[in-house]
Amino acid sequence: MTKLTNMTGEASVFLRACQRQSVEHTPVWFMRQAGRSLPEYRAIRAKHDFMTISRQPELCAEVTLQPVRRLGVDAAILFADIMTPLLAVGVDLELVEHVGPVIRQPVRSPDDLRQLRSLTPEEDAPFITDAIRLIKAELGERTPLIGFAGAPFTLAAYLIEGKGSRSFTTTKALMYQQPQVWHALMNRLSDITITYLSAQAQAGADALQLFDSWVGCLSPADYATYVHPYAERILGALRATGKPLIHFGTNTATLLDQMRDEGGTVIGVDWRIPLDAAWNVIGAEHAIQGNLDPGVLLGPWEIVEQQAKAVLRQAAGRNGHIFNLGHGIYPETPLDNLLRLVDLVHEYSAELAELAGAQ
Amino acid sequence: MTKLTNMTGEASVFLRACQRQSVEHTPVWFMRQAGRSLPEYRAIRAKHDFMTISRQPELCAEVTLQPVRRLGVDAAILFADIMTPLLAVGVDLELVEHVGPVIRQPVRSPDDLRQLRSLTPEEDAPFITDAIRLIKAELGERTPLIGFAGAPFTLAAYLIEGKGSRSFTTTKALMYQQPQVWHALMNRLSDITITYLSAQAQAGADALQLFDSWVGCLSPADYATYVHPYAERILGALRATGKPLIHFGTNTATLLDQMRDEGGTVIGVDWRIPLDAAWNVIGAEHAIQGNLDPGVLLGPWEIVEQQAKAVLRQAAGRNGHIFNLGHGIYPETPLDNLLRLVDLVHEYSAELAELAGAQ
Repeated sequence: MTKLTNMTGEASVFLRACQRQSVEHTPVWFMRQAGRSLPEYRAIRAKHDFMTISRQPELCAEVTLQPVRRLGVDAAILFADIMTPLLAVGVDLELVEHVGPVIRQPVRSPDDLRQLRSLTPEEDAPFITDAIRLIKAELGERTPLIGFAGAPFTLAAYLIEGKGSRSFTTTKALMYQQPQVWHALMNRLSDITITYLSAQAQAGADALQLFDSWVGCLSPADYATYVHPYAERILGALRATGKPLIHFGTNTATLLDQMRDEGGTVIGVDWRIPLDAAWNVIGAEHAIQGNLDPGVLLGPWEIVEQQAKAVLRQAAGRNGHIFNLGHGIYPETPLDNLLRLVDLVHEYSAELAELAGAQ
Repeated sequence: MTKLTNMTGEASVFLRACQRQSVEHTPVWFMRQAGRSLPEYRAIRAKHDFMTISRQPELCAEVTLQPVRRLGVDAAILFADIMTPLLAVGVDLELVEHVGPVIRQPVRSPDDLRQLRSLTPEEDAPFITDAIRLIKAELGERTPLIGFAGAPFTLAAYLIEGKGSRSFTTTKALMYQQPQVWHALMNRLSDITITYLSAQAQAGADALQLFDSWVGCLSPADYATYVHPYAERILGALRATGKPLIHFGTNTATLLDQMRDEGGTVIGVDWRIPLDAAWNVIGAEHAIQGNLDPGVLLGPWEIVEQQAKAVLRQAAGRNGHIFNLGHGIYPETPLDNLLRLVDLVHEYSAELAELAGAQ
């Protein structure tokens, strides 16, 4: 099977699936596909640290393109950290190996919001838009590029906790005790996110993913009060880009009815909810992305095959499925499982489509 | 309002709610109610470490009784760590402050299972049954005592990872790569858990809670293969005790249909799913326990009141609700919120019951 689909000028399978058009096979890409599971990425990381790679457009373009070449995935995703726009507006933070982002002055009071001025992407983070132009020049129309930003809840949680957390107690305490600080913070983060993703679209990104890693720690009622209005505002504003919008969060099984109404073109789901159950909640007006547990890729091929086929069968007969994992690839994932999985998704989904057509 | 209900010989509100009988007010207790949120617990911890408290029956009884006296909750829960039965059979582990249990030789191969011989509670952990007898002598029939054990998935995850984890990749890799080791491990842990909880019932515990902290990291399909048979076996065996069985896990919104069928009398749920939605899944044949986010208790009283009332309204009109948090109390929780919450649950649920009766 050829690794590069669509040499004909027709829109790629990925973009057609986003619009719930019929496709010859299900498109597949992986969150964190550019990363340590690829030897060519590890070779670059041996010479450059993460921040250098993400801030030098040539290096950023190179690692973004690696999984397209190696794995034959149907979309590239911009290599960037979710903290990039916050760094760009001057938030003092460090990416600590094995820890993640650490914020020097966590947000705990109205004064701490001063760290968050507005973002002018071409001035504050020119390396992002430069990288996108380099990547697009390389990819042409064959393979689309997905732009990417962390969603405001996850950014707010990092800013308030000062680093990652298991229970997000500091975040919740601030949310309940100082709602005016919370809402001001979410408003600023929403503005930054809109500007950041709009600039990515302007520079050539073909789709945009809003990624909420931590939002699954909230009850549906708190999500409605403290997050939903901002997701709605961001996705509403991004409609002006004309690009498909992928809205993904982890652990969102009970939040999907709210996410459905926020404006995403594609809703991404993790493995905690069966794909068909999730699609029933988000409804026929939305495409869906997901949802193999990335942990499954640590198992033998037979388990990967069985579980990936189960996901594809749950999506069969409906347009608009984009195969992905329910979260990022783990660094220790065997490369061979990734290679075989891309082929399996293409081949098995084509078989299922043929079977459906023959009936 | 008096702190001690039921001086009359009638079964306590807690036990009647477990059996879905009508009650004059909703019973309430809190996971980790014996702990750092109480000044009298901190006073004892200043003099003794955790393991000393849990292994000396007098100290264990004292900290178990503290929240009954102070908060007026409707049940006591045995103060114990989920690692107690593993320590008792000789697993070499340490409880490290701010880290949790650390296993010296994590389970990675069939040989590592030798650490898990069978448990003879009265010999291997006599302090547990001794503590239960002391507590029961103090409580009499006024306030029931809940016995408690960690569920085998959570124990297995600790044993395999060697400590807590965010993604449980080592656990999942073993599950998929060495299913025979996984199933042997789960079988041994199930035997230990049955023996351990049966001994607690025998010694006088009035109800038993099986607690699965980490099971929410699994897809419903993996839960069905790797966990469900063991939960079913344990709860099935414990029916012989004649005690109500509370089956609780965190992050189980999409696992509740399977948990419903495993034999628990009461299903505990966390805040990620609205209580009424959860009850609709588990059905009228089960009582339900939950489900205020413990993070809410870090907020001002007005937020606690609003959210606790919302939980109670979702349960109104049905017998069999036991009010609890969706996970353990955070150590930094203001005591005043706990005190007021117990009264609120008693008073507001009585009001709702009266309203329903008047209609």
